[in-house]
Amino acid sequence: MADHEAVFHLFFRRSPFKGGYAIAAGLANVIEYIENFKLDTSDLDYLSQFFPQDFLVYLKNMKLSVDIDAVEEGTVAFPQEPLVRVKGPLIQCQLLETALLNSINFSTLVATKASRICYAAKGEPVIEFGLRRAQGPDGGLTASRAAYIGGCVGTSNVLAGKKYHIPVRGTHAHSWVTAFSTEEEAFEKFSQAMPDNCYLLVDTFNSLEGVKKATKIGSKLLGIRLDSGDLAYLSIKARKILDHAGLKNTHIMASNDLDEYIIQSLKEQKAKIDIWAVGTKLSTAYDQPALDGIYKLSAIRPKGGKWEYKLKLSEQNAKISTPGLLRIKRFFNKKNGAIADCIYDELLGLPENILIIDILDPTRRKKIPLGTESEELLKSIFKKGKLIYKIPNIDISRDRTAKQLKLFHPAIRRFLNPHLYPIGLEKNLFELRMGLILKMKSS
Amino acid sequence: MADHEAVFHLFFRRSPFKGGYAIAAGLANVIEYIENFKLDTSDLDYLSQFFPQDFLVYLKNMKLSVDIDAVEEGTVAFPQEPLVRVKGPLIQCQLLETALLNSINFSTLVATKASRICYAAKGEPVIEFGLRRAQGPDGGLTASRAAYIGGCVGTSNVLAGKKYHIPVRGTHAHSWVTAFSTEEEAFEKFSQAMPDNCYLLVDTFNSLEGVKKATKIGSKLLGIRLDSGDLAYLSIKARKILDHAGLKNTHIMASNDLDEYIIQSLKEQKAKIDIWAVGTKLSTAYDQPALDGIYKLSAIRPKGGKWEYKLKLSEQNAKISTPGLLRIKRFFNKKNGAIADCIYDELLGLPENILIIDILDPTRRKKIPLGTESEELLKSIFKKGKLIYKIPNIDISRDRTAKQLKLFHPAIRRFLNPHLYPIGLEKNLFELRMGLILKMKSS
Repeated sequence: MADHEAVFHLFFRRSPFKGGYAIAAGLANVIEYIENFKLDTSDLDYLSQFFPQDFLVYLKNMKLSVDIDAVEEGTVAFPQEPLVRVKGPLIQCQLLETALLNSINFSTLVATKASRICYAAKGEPVIEFGLRRAQGPDGGLTASRAAYIGGCVGTSNVLAGKKYHIPVRGTHAHSWVTAFSTEEEAFEKFSQAMPDNCYLLVDTFNSLEGVKKATKIGSKLLGIRLDSGDLAYLSIKARKILDHAGLKNTHIMASNDLDEYIIQSLKEQKAKIDIWAVGTKLSTAYDQPALDGIYKLSAIRPKGGKWEYKLKLSEQNAKISTPGLLRIKRFFNKKNGAIADCIYDELLGLPENILIIDILDPTRRKKIPLGTESEELLKSIFKKGKLIYKIPNIDISRDRTAKQLKLFHPAIRRFLNPHLYPIGLEKNLFELRMGLILKMKSS
Repeated sequence: MADHEAVFHLFFRRSPFKGGYAIAAGLANVIEYIENFKLDTSDLDYLSQFFPQDFLVYLKNMKLSVDIDAVEEGTVAFPQEPLVRVKGPLIQCQLLETALLNSINFSTLVATKASRICYAAKGEPVIEFGLRRAQGPDGGLTASRAAYIGGCVGTSNVLAGKKYHIPVRGTHAHSWVTAFSTEEEAFEKFSQAMPDNCYLLVDTFNSLEGVKKATKIGSKLLGIRLDSGDLAYLSIKARKILDHAGLKNTHIMASNDLDEYIIQSLKEQKAKIDIWAVGTKLSTAYDQPALDGIYKLSAIRPKGGKWEYKLKLSEQNAKISTPGLLRIKRFFNKKNGAIADCIYDELLGLPENILIIDILDPTRRKKIPLGTESEELLKSIFKKGKLIYKIPNIDISRDRTAKQLKLFHPAIRRFLNPHLYPIGLEKNLFELRMGLILKMKSS
């Protein structure tokens, strides 16, 4: 059966962080993985303890020949929508499962977290500062890239800057200050060493005393950074000290376990912070460090045979997969932007009169008026194993996030009880799924 | 000042997961990083946008010449204790900061989490199953390695198995079952394909019906795996079905968002599970996905000069660093095992009568009787940049975890309000720190 043609879909079941959407990311990592997919001699040697020789030869000679369709990075996505669809020999689809989930789950999670943090910062720059607490060196690199796609303006991770062409930003360590005899001397030397990046970390001994000492640098002082204490109080006081010294253009950067909720609270308190440096809570997606993405077989076809629909049952409706060769159509109306997403089966096709039904609440239905504009969300990435998609420059993916979010009602971005954007199965697919479930449950 | 001799320490401030200890890990990753430390031409080209040419030449010609001492992997460690100490030219110590924190923070976190989960499983095997939800491919690899050191018996991550010599274990995907026409056929074919690893995932359609079908495999059925639903109820029913079919030796493996608390609860409910497969919650350390490790300068010495003590102030005592060239002595008594850890300064030395004072609660003090046995926890790893330590086989580090934990009263492993093991500064160091803090605060 290894060469039966199969279709698998990768999707998540709940929007992360109790939010109303996700920002798809990780496709570039998937492409890099697939382009480099190869079992070398040492791999085959290692696997020989588990598998017979003929299977190892099969693996050795295997060339990936799958079709892969995917939602582009920076696209707003919702639960149940396939972010990646893989079609090809059953064994190849299956072999890719873990690598695809690993790439898409984590990058989508961090891009979504970044977009939430940027939303809280209301357009002010957010810099990703998380490498030291990230989950391994690559956890840091991947997080820096995804955070930038999600809306951050830069990263403190210099290797990510080099590898992914992300702007790098940062200040100095506390040790720069403690190494000198006095804080004044440390600040003076830093402004000489880094005249183009003179952001001074002022909390090594006492934050407000530090701000006063920093003002002695004069107009070369681009910014100060607060990294502890009561950021609302300290930033308001610091702003006064800076303004009083005639440094109205000097920025106030803040860090210290920030996330979207703390930034929102600081803004409500009128904190005078205008650059947000967010580390641990962003790079590890601290309040939900994993997306619940899964990868399920949804149709299979023996050579020369017909497609057979497949699903995994569960006692919970939300955990039952959707059969078919799925596609997603997003509908727009000129006045309101995106109005609904429809998941449909390529074999069943789309009827002229489209009715969308929510899987989890079939009383939620939406009719799409004839002639409504639409976009197919799944784009063709690999065709028979050959890459036919050009990975966009990372700034294009970052711009896509911003443009995509503008297509939706801002209520989907609300942190508490976000708006439930209409998404569901096309009626024929809904009925096919329901019929299959009931048939399997009764057998 | 770049070549002034400096000392930095890496330590964490709170035991993770509200627990009473941590399992040190990540040293092998640090060693690999330092052994391969090099800025190549492309790095220097990239950095040329930030730094002047003479500094790039300095970096290019720089050879690491630091002394590194560290707590060995698998060692039980406590807050404030240096896990790594770096001594050498100031600039080199500083350059290593982020890489050291990234390696030690994450591996220590996951090794600790694994040891907690294994404690809940009361000696029954725990397998790490988290790659698909891990934070990037390396987040998965690093987690697999640290989880094994922490006590897991194996991993589903085959690359980790190959790279780190960890036993690999696993079952099949749901798609193995859905790809066939019937569950019986899927089970039969799997038992033929993998006769030595016949663990069957039974919840694709209905768990207990799945168990009944699995029994048809007979004595070759090594185990079944439950992956959804009420694991307590289902495992008890499944055990009866298996026993009734004469399969008393067939194991019941369970998975589905397990962690130490759920395993403890399942055991209280007399669940008949004897293999625990733990994924997301372990590999991402879900309830606390970052350790709060930091890295601080604690002494500096100009060429030919004297050591000067350094610390970073904060309004919170817990966030003030400890000055000195630190070492840790762990004291033992034959009857009770480890009785206290003492952090002391190499320059001040250790007096004959040792008194240990808790930084956060100076009323907590402990006198060490003369002649008490002890062990130095910081071992010499690099001397003038040269590796003088042999990374132990991973099984030795894993055994160390088990042996180390036996040295302590089990109350440190309790999940709720764990015992606070005595740890503090040697009295002279305590007074030196306090004196410096008060002097700096009054200046």
